Amino acid sequence: MSSEELKAALETVFAADSAIYQQRGFQRRIGFGERPALINIDLANAWTRPGNAFTCEGMEVIIPNVQRLLAAAREKRIPIVYTTTAYEVTEGPHSDMGLWQHKIPAEVLKAGSEAVEIDDRIAPQPGDQVIAKKRASAFHGTYLAGFLRAARVDTVIITGATVSACVRNTTEDAIAEGFRPIVVREAVGDRVPGVVEWNLFDIDAKFGDVEPIDTVLQYLDGLDLVNR
Amino acid sequence: MSSEELKAALETVFAADSAIYQQRGFQRRIGFGERPALINIDLANAWTRPGNAFTCEGMEVIIPNVQRLLAAAREKRIPIVYTTTAYEVTEGPHSDMGLWQHKIPAEVLKAGSEAVEIDDRIAPQPGDQVIAKKRASAFHGTYLAGFLRAARVDTVIITGATVSACVRNTTEDAIAEGFRPIVVREAVGDRVPGVVEWNLFDIDAKFGDVEPIDTVLQYLDGLDLVNR
Amino acid sequence: MSSEELKAALETVFAADSAIYQQRGFQRRIGFGERPALINIDLANAWTRPGNAFTCEGMEVIIPNVQRLLAAAREKRIPIVYTTTAYEVTEGPHSDMGLWQHKIPAEVLKAGSEAVEIDDRIAPQPGDQVIAKKRASAFHGTYLAGFLRAARVDTVIITGATVSACVRNTTEDAIAEGFRPIVVREAVGDRVPGVVEWNLFDIDAKFGDVEPIDTVLQYLDGLDLVNR
Amino acid sequence: MSSEELKAALETVFAADSAIYQQRGFQRRIGFGERPALINIDLANAWTRPGNAFTCEGMEVIIPNVQRLLAAAREKRIPIVYTTTAYEVTEGPHSDMGLWQHKIPAEVLKAGSEAVEIDDRIAPQPGDQVIAKKRASAFHGTYLAGFLRAARVDTVIITGATVSACVRNTTEDAIAEGFRPIVVREAVGDRVPGVVEWNLFDIDAKFGDVEPIDTVLQYLDGLDLVNR
Repeated sequence: MSSEELKAALETVFAADSAIYQQRGFQRRIGFGERPALINIDLANAWTRPGNAFTCEGMEVIIPNVQRLLAAAREKRIPIVYTTTAYEVTEGPHSDMGLWQHKIPAEVLKAGSEAVEIDDRIAPQPGDQVIAKKRASAFHGTYLAGFLRAARVDTVIITGATVSACVRNTTEDAIAEGFRPIVVREAVGDRVPGVVEWNLFDIDAKFGDVEPIDTVLQYLDGLDLVNR
Repeated sequence: MSSEELKAALETVFAADSAIYQQRGFQRRIGFGERPALINIDLANAWTRPGNAFTCEGMEVIIPNVQRLLAAAREKRIPIVYTTTAYEVTEGPHSDMGLWQHKIPAEVLKAGSEAVEIDDRIAPQPGDQVIAKKRASAFHGTYLAGFLRAARVDTVIITGATVSACVRNTTEDAIAEGFRPIVVREAVGDRVPGVVEWNLFDIDAKFGDVEPIDTVLQYLDGLDLVNR
Repeated sequence: MSSEELKAALETVFAADSAIYQQRGFQRRIGFGERPALINIDLANAWTRPGNAFTCEGMEVIIPNVQRLLAAAREKRIPIVYTTTAYEVTEGPHSDMGLWQHKIPAEVLKAGSEAVEIDDRIAPQPGDQVIAKKRASAFHGTYLAGFLRAARVDTVIITGATVSACVRNTTEDAIAEGFRPIVVREAVGDRVPGVVEWNLFDIDAKFGDVEPIDTVLQYLDGLDLVNR
Repeated sequence: MSSEELKAALETVFAADSAIYQQRGFQRRIGFGERPALINIDLANAWTRPGNAFTCEGMEVIIPNVQRLLAAAREKRIPIVYTTTAYEVTEGPHSDMGLWQHKIPAEVLKAGSEAVEIDDRIAPQPGDQVIAKKRASAFHGTYLAGFLRAARVDTVIITGATVSACVRNTTEDAIAEGFRPIVVREAVGDRVPGVVEWNLFDIDAKFGDVEPIDTVLQYLDGLDLVNR
């Protein structure tokens, strides 16, 4: 099955599913709030560069789009958060990988290695937060929710990888914690065919709005600078 | 596209994806631990009976399978947890729905209504826990993790609905919290075509083992009763 | 040692401690924000009425003060939350008491009993939240943080019992989660001599502002009704 | 009031309070479990060395006692966790201090500074976890609970500073999360008179067992090495 055939098949399913969802009252719009933050999930070298078990596709599109979002976010001085996933202890019975290495190759994500550093094409600036998380969600076992609430954030704009794990789980937790999740369609990626499409479909049906980057940039452009 | 055509198309994608995942070190087996609990997600009438916005498919298979799992779990006296999703305040600006009613029809899940009661074909017994959660995950904003740790549980056997929301999010949180998630393939369901398949595929690749019910029943049958 | 002698001795210690704290930069003022909620901790009959293991002192002052705070809060339509502590399973190895019954007599707090119902002198109204928590903090294992964030609350006004456990732990979690905690001095209580004083001292030094009720009522009176 | 007079006055109160607590069923013993971890709270230079706003008293006793506990813990290969409190951004509106700098001088705890490094007299070894937390509790906004559960820990032995904030809040969260907290009386400290005594009293009444170091060392000595 070619990539086009796959996408066509999935679009057919999504159309049928959407008819049911809309009749049932799912796929509502949560919309943008007044005080956003930009959250870039796992755009570290292990995901953005070739040759790692975690390497993702599509970075030639994602990285420039995240650059545009970062520029807009910095101009409006909204909080910017990066996550990476990194482990201090990758051997023995007392690892901070917990149980996750029994499902995925977490052991290659060593704290302090180049692999887990944020890609320098979108390098963090002083004042940004870089959170080294241990699990899929940017909220799970981190200070992210408390940080965002103290900054009176009500909306999280989400980019990064992977859509089938960390991006999706972050979106699920964001709405659960009381933040409006906006996932930027052309700024998220993954590593195997199909998973971007079906996870964005599920997210948009139930957890957050999946929006094109132009809509997000227009929203950021319209923000004022008062009270930030 | 017929149901058979959809499944065939998805199986083709999954085979291609699995080849990549296995070469990269994903899709590992987490396996069963020594002290399981049974977690039944949202098998309340809104999901298990016809006529609700949340009604799911396949209950003629799921309910009997959950009955078999419950019988095995009760025989070995392992902890049994049911969840439902229910809201006290479904109007006005201060609702316990939080932001979720901006994506899904949460307002039909009124606390105290028949819709949010556990289906009486699989009724809770004295000594079971019934958790009225507010979000997708059975762990988010509930005492589940603390309860399971105090009971020294290391494995959670997961059934229920829906695979694309509450079951999946519970599985993601379970491994994050340090429990081995086992999702019972023939005891979980959803309401639109395709989502059961692709979410079980994602779960099995990254968050928990998706296992046939016979394997799970065999495991429960082999447990001893010491220290429970 | 009489009650007056105890208070005098404690005041002497607090004065000496405060000198050190202020020189070091502790005991700062967090202040009131713009969007408060009122959180009443465990003002259920087990705490407010005589004859229970959990019975507290001072309810002849606390209850009328909470009535005044409730009236002011209802007038300004701010979110109102009550907590109680209640358990479904108080026997056997799989209790929702977790490990807490190994320190305190949690087994008398049976869900559904009159003991764990909110005192009817300060009865909840439709639209209020009543959270049955399992642990000391109103935030731990509950949906409180997500609820407050979704309602864009930035300040929590805290009353209830006990200062040495649930009130204090709620205050610690409130600031950690990004909410400004204000503890109402004449609306909190406990059951043994001294603990109110030293816990309010610790709270005010490090976690939240302890304020007289008149200051809190004046603040509520000054709130406008816009955007609530 | 001299230090002796203060302690005598507090002992008088504690005796009166204990009579009430024991009659009511508080001050129970939680006891040691089978799989402990050692958690050293904020024994970084800001707390253990002179000249910092956070400097504590009693390190001439605490540090040697923690050395003894570490030696015993390493011999039995139990998990060892250190925490420190450190902030990446200590200026501007988007700080990871959240709201805490409005109560305490959190701004002196800069990530990467010598102040927030663990005291080298009790230096972490490869395989230990060092968690840079943002809040008082070692559990709040960290992966500690998930890590401990994945390692099947059931008991946490707690040392460090300060008793009136981070040690106490960690103990409260530990029992809430399902771990048996044991606070080592001669291995915890604080910076102002009285607070060690009244917080250990409250902890022992309600949240965890406060035990002399000899009891803890004897327990560790009796552990076998199987399954660690």
